[in-house]
Amino acid sequence: MTRLPPPPASSFASDNAAGVLPEVMAAVVAANDGPALAYGADPWTARAEALVAEVLGAPDAKVAFCWGGTGANVVGLQSLLKPWEAVVCPDTAHIHVDECGAPERFTGAKLLALPTPDGKLRPEQIAPLLHVVGDEHHVQPRVVSITQSTEQGTLYRPDEIAALADEAHSRGLYLHLDGARLANAAAALGGEVRSSTSLAGVDVLTFGATKAGAMYGEAVVFLRPGLGEDVRFVRKQAAQLPSKMRFVAAQFEALLTDGLWLLAAGHANAMAARLAERLSVLPGVVIPRSPEVNAVFVQLPSAAAAAELQEWSFVWDWDVATHEVRAMTSFATTPDDVDRFAEGVAAVTARHL
Amino acid sequence: MTRLPPPPASSFASDNAAGVLPEVMAAVVAANDGPALAYGADPWTARAEALVAEVLGAPDAKVAFCWGGTGANVVGLQSLLKPWEAVVCPDTAHIHVDECGAPERFTGAKLLALPTPDGKLRPEQIAPLLHVVGDEHHVQPRVVSITQSTEQGTLYRPDEIAALADEAHSRGLYLHLDGARLANAAAALGGEVRSSTSLAGVDVLTFGATKAGAMYGEAVVFLRPGLGEDVRFVRKQAAQLPSKMRFVAAQFEALLTDGLWLLAAGHANAMAARLAERLSVLPGVVIPRSPEVNAVFVQLPSAAAAAELQEWSFVWDWDVATHEVRAMTSFATTPDDVDRFAEGVAAVTARHL
Amino acid sequence: MTRLPPPPASSFASDNAAGVLPEVMAAVVAANDGPALAYGADPWTARAEALVAEVLGAPDAKVAFCWGGTGANVVGLQSLLKPWEAVVCPDTAHIHVDECGAPERFTGAKLLALPTPDGKLRPEQIAPLLHVVGDEHHVQPRVVSITQSTEQGTLYRPDEIAALADEAHSRGLYLHLDGARLANAAAALGGEVRSSTSLAGVDVLTFGATKAGAMYGEAVVFLRPGLGEDVRFVRKQAAQLPSKMRFVAAQFEALLTDGLWLLAAGHANAMAARLAERLSVLPGVVIPRSPEVNAVFVQLPSAAAAAELQEWSFVWDWDVATHEVRAMTSFATTPDDVDRFAEGVAAVTARHL
Amino acid sequence: MTRLPPPPASSFASDNAAGVLPEVMAAVVAANDGPALAYGADPWTARAEALVAEVLGAPDAKVAFCWGGTGANVVGLQSLLKPWEAVVCPDTAHIHVDECGAPERFTGAKLLALPTPDGKLRPEQIAPLLHVVGDEHHVQPRVVSITQSTEQGTLYRPDEIAALADEAHSRGLYLHLDGARLANAAAALGGEVRSSTSLAGVDVLTFGATKAGAMYGEAVVFLRPGLGEDVRFVRKQAAQLPSKMRFVAAQFEALLTDGLWLLAAGHANAMAARLAERLSVLPGVVIPRSPEVNAVFVQLPSAAAAAELQEWSFVWDWDVATHEVRAMTSFATTPDDVDRFAEGVAAVTARHL
Repeated sequence: MTRLPPPPASSFASDNAAGVLPEVMAAVVAANDGPALAYGADPWTARAEALVAEVLGAPDAKVAFCWGGTGANVVGLQSLLKPWEAVVCPDTAHIHVDECGAPERFTGAKLLALPTPDGKLRPEQIAPLLHVVGDEHHVQPRVVSITQSTEQGTLYRPDEIAALADEAHSRGLYLHLDGARLANAAAALGGEVRSSTSLAGVDVLTFGATKAGAMYGEAVVFLRPGLGEDVRFVRKQAAQLPSKMRFVAAQFEALLTDGLWLLAAGHANAMAARLAERLSVLPGVVIPRSPEVNAVFVQLPSAAAAAELQEWSFVWDWDVATHEVRAMTSFATTPDDVDRFAEGVAAVTARHL
Repeated sequence: MTRLPPPPASSFASDNAAGVLPEVMAAVVAANDGPALAYGADPWTARAEALVAEVLGAPDAKVAFCWGGTGANVVGLQSLLKPWEAVVCPDTAHIHVDECGAPERFTGAKLLALPTPDGKLRPEQIAPLLHVVGDEHHVQPRVVSITQSTEQGTLYRPDEIAALADEAHSRGLYLHLDGARLANAAAALGGEVRSSTSLAGVDVLTFGATKAGAMYGEAVVFLRPGLGEDVRFVRKQAAQLPSKMRFVAAQFEALLTDGLWLLAAGHANAMAARLAERLSVLPGVVIPRSPEVNAVFVQLPSAAAAAELQEWSFVWDWDVATHEVRAMTSFATTPDDVDRFAEGVAAVTARHL
Repeated sequence: MTRLPPPPASSFASDNAAGVLPEVMAAVVAANDGPALAYGADPWTARAEALVAEVLGAPDAKVAFCWGGTGANVVGLQSLLKPWEAVVCPDTAHIHVDECGAPERFTGAKLLALPTPDGKLRPEQIAPLLHVVGDEHHVQPRVVSITQSTEQGTLYRPDEIAALADEAHSRGLYLHLDGARLANAAAALGGEVRSSTSLAGVDVLTFGATKAGAMYGEAVVFLRPGLGEDVRFVRKQAAQLPSKMRFVAAQFEALLTDGLWLLAAGHANAMAARLAERLSVLPGVVIPRSPEVNAVFVQLPSAAAAAELQEWSFVWDWDVATHEVRAMTSFATTPDDVDRFAEGVAAVTARHL
Repeated sequence: MTRLPPPPASSFASDNAAGVLPEVMAAVVAANDGPALAYGADPWTARAEALVAEVLGAPDAKVAFCWGGTGANVVGLQSLLKPWEAVVCPDTAHIHVDECGAPERFTGAKLLALPTPDGKLRPEQIAPLLHVVGDEHHVQPRVVSITQSTEQGTLYRPDEIAALADEAHSRGLYLHLDGARLANAAAALGGEVRSSTSLAGVDVLTFGATKAGAMYGEAVVFLRPGLGEDVRFVRKQAAQLPSKMRFVAAQFEALLTDGLWLLAAGHANAMAARLAERLSVLPGVVIPRSPEVNAVFVQLPSAAAAAELQEWSFVWDWDVATHEVRAMTSFATTPDDVDRFAEGVAAVTARHL
């Protein structure tokens, strides 16, 4: 029986399992210098807000740092919605599946979740929901929400986002983008983020830092003028206002300086590509779609094989029916980790063929 | 005209204006070591939860780390309340005044805020609210919430908390304690926290770390068996679940090791005492009540004097009518800061007598 | 020992204890004629909406019929408020005391309840709450809510309402009026309702029908142009949209035809005046304030006297400390009922002197 | 060109378009007799509550009368749910599609809507949703909600409901039944309601009166002991507590006396059967499924035909893609109305073949 190698040093369970980029940690330590007024009235916050806006090519954007991803999504959506309105999103959206109902609970609004083959909404899926507009018996669609890169590990091209924004705007809806993995998307799209955000017509987005290598902190960014006027109140009431804000801001500053966020995410993406390459040649292993960012979905021969792999180095089930698991890479994943993980998959699979 | 000295290096605006204790920062840096499963499935979290419970003398307590103080209060209260119930609290309570309505917004319940001379609720204030029990037209009191130490800088003695707990329990109510400054209280009560929490009959508390010298993170602690069964769901839906939880846990671990939190808070308290002493001898300055913890309230001769002081080294207005400002000390306040601040008050006051 | 007479045929417990005016019942029966589209798409509703607007002297007012008084208050307030805002009201307000927290639960906003000597808010009570405007830690006052006639049985004069409206508007706030007993107020003010509503600057009001003699149904009326654009959605989501709406509308039509509502309320007011007159001469009975509308507050010699009276013909305690009960009259109260009730009070009191 | 006959006297748009049964109206008029304490403390309410419980074969059931159907659903669901829980329902459910998000808004919980061929949930659809139980990232299924008869005009057999109840209970879930048209179902099932409610294991239901011939009023009924302990508070906070309750109760009493509700619903069902029979023989008209209760779905030759029919005698579109409209019958529909409507369909269709 095939022996399993020692598990890799990194975890492939989630990009949240990685720690903090050294440059980000250094910035946190450096920010611990003397007093600073709380709640964002400090120079770190002013600099980081400007930097986020600049990176997005939207100098007048409103930026509000929040604690985490669910909180940032809640704050962004609450700023757009009345409680009898609705959000159109893919049925795999994090806001729909993975946030324990926080968006509905806080905004009062409903999510209208649509099936997609790949986690990506299409413009033509919007119109059929709009025959209820004006009828008080039905919630009123007001926001289209997409995730970039998606929960399925796929990527919207800039023109795809622009087409969604055009369709949404022509119908009187806003386009919200959950960018928990915006860094991975930007890296995959050539190290450039504007063409798929501000230039594409996104109205509001969550700019993720945690999965990109920060300790904590996400930003809600209002790109469309006039939106987010009340965001400070929304954020405070949502319990998303960090008191010692400078430490969130310092992390954003470090990430966005000299393209660190893109380098780190590009590395994670490359590791996923390497992993897919290693795994795709294994007999009995199916990689149903080539990784576009930092997620590799892996179909194993059997549930027993999946369980054995998880015992050895934990990854999450993705589709129990097809014995599909999800392996995530991060800035901290090394080529050696990838090769070690692939060896483990090979060894486990060999036992179950 | 009296010249003002250079302002102190520390800010007296808030204990949130201080940074992070060196030992806490070191623990954060040390926790950045390899991968760790997210959302609390890591050894740091297990250790820190046990340590919090141990410090409180309640080995079976349920501990849930949250992002911040408002969030922790929301999570704790939601775990106790149905939406047609109510919280009895002083009208100076942080949950009533300073959280932008987050507790009501999230729990749906109402706060019944009562006047007090000193921020401290009395047992006899509870019963008069209970004639509505059972009458569906009125919200039903279910939780008594107190703050230790209070927003007024005062301190409940352990027997005072026990009396409130007894009264609450005999009426079928719970006792919730907002411990954003529990460290200052514990230090002021002789370096011991059990007699005013678990031994006094507190059911649920927010155990504050941020104002005690952490970067971020607070804990909700359920002391009464049977409470908090659903806290993991409450916390997630409230967007208060940190993903890279180990960094919160590591901070708690550092604070609670070798009594660091008590030493740091005791220092802050001592600095407040020193400041009160310095100020109380100044002509034209009134210290309306001796500091019990780390807040000093200072009545200045005029609004103009207050404004001038704020311009020089910012502190918050407390009562505009009496030109009263609030000066907070922290672990980072030095004797030199205190003396410098007192000199500034003296100089400003001298101009306005 | 004094024998008690048989209790009166009418109840003095509440104006809700009365049934339905004969003309209103006839209108309900008459409306049961053939089919009518549901949810207000019927001719009764169109006519009744126009009539409400006309009576208020506001032909462009938006009118939304709801099921009940709490529902109408919730719908009106939700239409004005964001969840981080607040309503300023007397601490005796029905929305604060008697609606089981429905307004806060539904709107998310907070009520800031102020003490008054007589249930009537004064303009100068508003400004002191506004120092928090713009500060995200505090809920933002946005609506002033008054009740006409008040829960204390008192009456705002038109100029008092106008002064409140002016103060509210000059501060960027709206004026909301809970008119559950608007009929009694209008009758007491000379049979005219415009001078204390549309002409006084009220922005939104609940126009009560139930206590005026209807079976059920209240109207939310938006007097200020631009308000209430979304009221149909608010009403439906608040579960306040009657399906067979014609039966609500028919009642309003009957009430507002030929001044029926004013005649009926005027009668109720007169019965309260008669009752106060009868009672004020009784030894041991104190009428602390002359009735302005249809409520008589009666201080009895002892708690035992109050209990005995309640046993004989039920009325609600108003202030247990002073043995004060509240007796309400309605369109259905007869002079004989009043005299009989007064005899009962006399008999009970005689036993307890 | 075929001339259209005069439209029928009754509307086929909705069973809400009918008025009130004469016996029910007589009961309302009779209830207007003297005073009665408000909010249900009256003999009509006591009698009607007992009668509802008796009809359901559940003498200990808790019964709470509410204003309308959406309100009753909200009150029933709120009594079962914590905000991080979820309701499993068909994607055609009234609570999901037609209540403007009221259930989610009020309960905070999420609806998990599943596709069905006929509006009827199957037991095997529940288990696949339960792999998330215990995982805080996901809402926790807690209630299964079905509608009897369904929005599609179909009917659950008693054994189908029992199978759903068994499956729900074995998984720790409750079974909620929206009985807005329970009368039509009971009539179709042989004039007996217990076998598909209390005997089948339904935990909570909305017992509809309005569509059965009442003016307004629905009942929430808790069949399972221990549920609904707080329903009085839930109902008041949801603004669903009628003040002059006797008029709601009197209607239920009239409906449930001598089987009036079953006779009236049986008539409506028979009229639907007659209509389907008349229409099914028309060339160009398709009746996709035989009516089981009082709804007839009719596919017309074209959108133009549908529009023409709606112009003549309004009915709602059901599926625009197949030119399908829905015709509802009620207690007020006469055979002549049916024949007249069928003639209209024939005439319109003839023009569009």
